[in-house]
Amino acid sequence: MVSSPANIRYLTGYAGSNGLMLMTRTEEHFFTDPRYGADAQAHITCQVHVAKGPLILAAAAMVKRKKVRRVAFEPAWLHVDQFEHLKGAIPKTTVLRGVGGIVEQLRAVKSADEIAKIRRSVRVNSEAFARTMNRVKAGIREHEIAAELDFQMRILGSEKPAFDTIVAAGARSALPHAHPSAHQLAPNELLLIDMGAMVDGYASDMTRVAHLGPVPKRTRQLYRAVAEAQQAALDVVHAGIPASKVDAAARAVLKKHNLEKEFVHSTGHGLGLEIHEAPRVGKKEKTRLQAGMVITVEPGAYINGFGGVRIEDTVLVTEHGCQVMTPTPKRLFDL
Amino acid sequence: MVSSPANIRYLTGYAGSNGLMLMTRTEEHFFTDPRYGADAQAHITCQVHVAKGPLILAAAAMVKRKKVRRVAFEPAWLHVDQFEHLKGAIPKTTVLRGVGGIVEQLRAVKSADEIAKIRRSVRVNSEAFARTMNRVKAGIREHEIAAELDFQMRILGSEKPAFDTIVAAGARSALPHAHPSAHQLAPNELLLIDMGAMVDGYASDMTRVAHLGPVPKRTRQLYRAVAEAQQAALDVVHAGIPASKVDAAARAVLKKHNLEKEFVHSTGHGLGLEIHEAPRVGKKEKTRLQAGMVITVEPGAYINGFGGVRIEDTVLVTEHGCQVMTPTPKRLFDL
Repeated sequence: MVSSPANIRYLTGYAGSNGLMLMTRTEEHFFTDPRYGADAQAHITCQVHVAKGPLILAAAAMVKRKKVRRVAFEPAWLHVDQFEHLKGAIPKTTVLRGVGGIVEQLRAVKSADEIAKIRRSVRVNSEAFARTMNRVKAGIREHEIAAELDFQMRILGSEKPAFDTIVAAGARSALPHAHPSAHQLAPNELLLIDMGAMVDGYASDMTRVAHLGPVPKRTRQLYRAVAEAQQAALDVVHAGIPASKVDAAARAVLKKHNLEKEFVHSTGHGLGLEIHEAPRVGKKEKTRLQAGMVITVEPGAYINGFGGVRIEDTVLVTEHGCQVMTPTPKRLFDL
Repeated sequence: MVSSPANIRYLTGYAGSNGLMLMTRTEEHFFTDPRYGADAQAHITCQVHVAKGPLILAAAAMVKRKKVRRVAFEPAWLHVDQFEHLKGAIPKTTVLRGVGGIVEQLRAVKSADEIAKIRRSVRVNSEAFARTMNRVKAGIREHEIAAELDFQMRILGSEKPAFDTIVAAGARSALPHAHPSAHQLAPNELLLIDMGAMVDGYASDMTRVAHLGPVPKRTRQLYRAVAEAQQAALDVVHAGIPASKVDAAARAVLKKHNLEKEFVHSTGHGLGLEIHEAPRVGKKEKTRLQAGMVITVEPGAYINGFGGVRIEDTVLVTEHGCQVMTPTPKRLFDL
């Protein structure tokens, strides 16, 4: 039984907000409510069941009718009340077992069709960035930049931002998860933009930094250290390497620049139907990268009270290396 | 133990994505991760605990340490894997019981401060609608209108849309949950816009319809019937009335116009920190409205292949009636 919306979309193409899937070795059943019934019946190759009540009860009735003896469910995606409903509506002899991560593992390696969708997503994202940067000047507010980025993504064909767009200027750029504020961009400030588009259901993710006015030495050095760390991480990516080694490559460069304590997050993460999905690219991740995985590579260094730099690309893992999918040039943008 | 993000925000003000709350009769504990620790410690009056691992395990350790004997949790907001983690980390004698809806019931009646926030939200929403309508003309695509609405809301101070903005033209207006498409607005088409802003965490919700060119008799009649139904529903709203009677008032008018089968959803819903919250305003909802509840009143009629009309306001329930909070005029907008 599959409850995760992203897993359901991966298996069926269904993109609505209320669906549930039940697969046996020979049958595929999809449950939804009347709002989505006609659309699901037209586009989904499973047997589609339109339920009037809770989907979990419709699925339970199917379990009973088909005399299914063991049901594996997704414990990270089933709420306790749904579990209780399910348990109460099936025979006591039916075994329920939580089994997580099966579809997530399939999703980690992308098909050619998925890679094409992510390619469209990075292009939309980068074009929206380029159009917006043309309009950024002193006095503009962080949330105005964010609004323009989101508008341009949408105009260019994105369904929505892949996550809440981050725009942080000046000392606020040192907050890795800053919400865009009414702060007005002032001369001699760093500007950090972390953005992603959702296109045909697939995410992109990119971070770039800009600077308003002549760049001070300290800022230049900070930028160069992070850029060197990002390149070092990209250089080691290839099929077969443990994800932890990509993280270690970035971390080693930042350590050389005495910035290891300023790098407070992981080097990256997989992305696809979700903005964060398998594999993690962190210190302890033993998963070996495979050709067709799409990950971010995004080291950063954040200096409290001064500002932060992060450089992030969306990257396709290949047999002998990687392909940086993000088309935006990598430099400290001058404003 | 409170897991619902909206319930946590209501009780603590915390608006991040990873929080958990544990209350006893005398103590209030709040758990979050290092990303949000400093901010939480500065703004939340509970005892703040910054956990490095899963929050549920930090909460379980507190349950054990404080020798709590019974824990009520929210079954609609706790996943099975979290429940198992919790169960495995507390003494076997500690009783776990699912208890839903307690905070939701508190949230249904809004404080003066919450009403002020919703008032700001409806204003932002209506101003974004007005600015966008000035730019709508033949040939514009549904998703371009949606992008402009979302942009204007953001510029005016909204964090994000309260839900995916609905823009549906021509026959597509008969689909109550249409996603904005590349369809270009053509003469003699209806245009339905359903939008809401999130401002300071609080939602607004409004639907208006417009028509491009001289309005045909059938469209005029459809609009008038729905407008009459909406007014009839507004007329009966006051503290003490069962929510079902508001629904019945709208439904009776549409029945008079032979449109009862074309009204395929409920008349409304509560809104606040979430776009859908208690109370429902539907056929079977026995809950009596109370002064301070904020609900939508949004009857509609959808004619397959022709088009649909929905008229929706955000409404404050008062002792002897109601106050329509939405400032946008109610008419069939000419384009």
